[in-house]
Amino acid sequence: MTDCLPLARGVLVVGTGLIGTSVALALHSRGVRVFLEDASPAAARMAKDLGGGVIGKPDEDPDLVVVAVPPPHVPAVVVEVQRRYVSASVMDLASVKSHVLLEVETLKGDLSRFVGGHPMAGRERSGAVQARADLFEGRAWVLCPTDMTSSLTLERAEAVVACCGADPLVVAADRHDLGVALVSHLPQVLASAMAARLTEAPADLVALAGPGVRDVTRIAAGDPELWTDILSANAQIVLGELEGLLVDLEAVRHALYRLGGADGRADSQARDVLHDLILRGGRGQARLPGKHGGRPTTYTRVSVVVTDEPGQLAGLFNAADRAGINVEDVTIEHAAGHPVGVVELHVQPVAAADLAAALLAEGWNVHG
Amino acid sequence: MTDCLPLARGVLVVGTGLIGTSVALALHSRGVRVFLEDASPAAARMAKDLGGGVIGKPDEDPDLVVVAVPPPHVPAVVVEVQRRYVSASVMDLASVKSHVLLEVETLKGDLSRFVGGHPMAGRERSGAVQARADLFEGRAWVLCPTDMTSSLTLERAEAVVACCGADPLVVAADRHDLGVALVSHLPQVLASAMAARLTEAPADLVALAGPGVRDVTRIAAGDPELWTDILSANAQIVLGELEGLLVDLEAVRHALYRLGGADGRADSQARDVLHDLILRGGRGQARLPGKHGGRPTTYTRVSVVVTDEPGQLAGLFNAADRAGINVEDVTIEHAAGHPVGVVELHVQPVAAADLAAALLAEGWNVHG
Repeated sequence: MTDCLPLARGVLVVGTGLIGTSVALALHSRGVRVFLEDASPAAARMAKDLGGGVIGKPDEDPDLVVVAVPPPHVPAVVVEVQRRYVSASVMDLASVKSHVLLEVETLKGDLSRFVGGHPMAGRERSGAVQARADLFEGRAWVLCPTDMTSSLTLERAEAVVACCGADPLVVAADRHDLGVALVSHLPQVLASAMAARLTEAPADLVALAGPGVRDVTRIAAGDPELWTDILSANAQIVLGELEGLLVDLEAVRHALYRLGGADGRADSQARDVLHDLILRGGRGQARLPGKHGGRPTTYTRVSVVVTDEPGQLAGLFNAADRAGINVEDVTIEHAAGHPVGVVELHVQPVAAADLAAALLAEGWNVHG
Repeated sequence: MTDCLPLARGVLVVGTGLIGTSVALALHSRGVRVFLEDASPAAARMAKDLGGGVIGKPDEDPDLVVVAVPPPHVPAVVVEVQRRYVSASVMDLASVKSHVLLEVETLKGDLSRFVGGHPMAGRERSGAVQARADLFEGRAWVLCPTDMTSSLTLERAEAVVACCGADPLVVAADRHDLGVALVSHLPQVLASAMAARLTEAPADLVALAGPGVRDVTRIAAGDPELWTDILSANAQIVLGELEGLLVDLEAVRHALYRLGGADGRADSQARDVLHDLILRGGRGQARLPGKHGGRPTTYTRVSVVVTDEPGQLAGLFNAADRAGINVEDVTIEHAAGHPVGVVELHVQPVAAADLAAALLAEGWNVHG
């Protein structure tokens, strides 16, 4: 709780979608008074029911207002809450930072009480129902203070980051926008472009898909409205990254053209182009930080082969319960029309052997 | 073991990399006599030590030879083993099928004893050490028999597929090659091209990477030599898919150019281009078969807020059971150390309302 002391007068979260609600859950679980506000009463109620705090405007100035509304509304809301709570600091969580700063300035917001923030976490689906208190744990949370930002405001923003279990990363707004163009916005464009190829493909071809294309396109399930806003807000920078990538893809196109011709398969120059790209790709991939941006996932999976009959999952969870073991997560691997599937129960590593033994003793088909 | 009866005289696996060794492990674990052969004695020894069978050439003809050598060597090895074992059937496992068929024919191989195969499973890293007996469980395994393929050869190949726990999928070779260009080769090019952007990026920008770019680039860790072979073998088809994708990326480039100009953010035509791509991407992504290839993800999710106490999951599944509803998949949104989580039960759309009502009646905190 000491981390949260700079927030003793409470935090108002405006916008209880995925990110806002996750912030609320994290802060509230650490004992911070959290107020929830959303244009949609249902969204605010969901955030409250999940344990995010109380709905409504605080009577006194909160220490900090977290602005987690859709990107186009961010600057106006920042300035509005600054006028409503004249001693409160404000942190927005939009994915692109430079233009927010510019617009808050244009709208005559108080830059001393403003700091841009961007937690580097998210999920492919949006909405409060997807929110989790640990969404930010171990993740980087970018803070973009300016020369105008007061030390009190920065201290409060850092308290939010700390109470969410995230690692603060102070970066200039324009540097941030360059980074996310590379590691977030360009991947989104590529995932969407790849997934778009699947819309018109015959079903028998799509049926050949395995885990590779599913991973490449996972983030393509993102919200079109939100992503149009994000890409528009960072258009110039994303354009630069996309153009760099297109140079490589054009080279691949040319190489494939040559290799596809008669006797083309022996074209060593064309092969070199492909080899070089795959090689560089491997090197680039190896530079990425690990899962959860540092801390590894620590669960161990116990695999059980089950038949596709009602009651199997209930039976499995009942058995885990009887063994006194908490199942942290579960993955079900299932094939259509195929009577057998694999259920993976994710448990604390120390509990895995006990769970496997208990399930085996009850006659379950435990693997691995 | 009945599945494996057509393989009673044993199987020779030529090429004990990731795929060959995984086949050997699966067959051997089902009681099939497996012989292992590899140009590298170390690779063969690893396959043996992992439990894949015995090293060496069988004295009598095996029922089937699995050819799992690097793609460029496949046709010659197929023909060589057909000459060595005149009654054995041969299945190759190369990722591109049409050209293997053509070359085996050119080399005067026996097409009655030959069938192309392609297990739709793999890992981003290669080598016997990555092999697993269950690598193919529940996955599709493409078989490309021709009019020339004997029924005995097809039966033996199907036995290998069944003994590996995979689902056979009979597809013409050229249709297969079109499908993998779309769902495997193009994603590989994109993942590599994206990951290649990371090789020269400053470390402080790469540090901003989250799970999104990691998923998009996971397969970029593939083997450059292998992937150059695969892309070369399917060059013409991959070229067609890449060109379709480049049309979309060029449109995005133009839209970003317009949006990045002065007052560009209001350019609704340019925004529409981005919105349309993200929307189509979401639709295409939704067409992908579920985990481990099978039913597409058409389930409706019923969200329930639960506390982090033992017994909650079991109670939930028991309640679904009592309502007579089969839970197809489950997602648990849980925070370590946080008392509340969201469990999403995936059920047939027609069953969603009934399940929600039944859970509400029992006092569960149902959302959405």
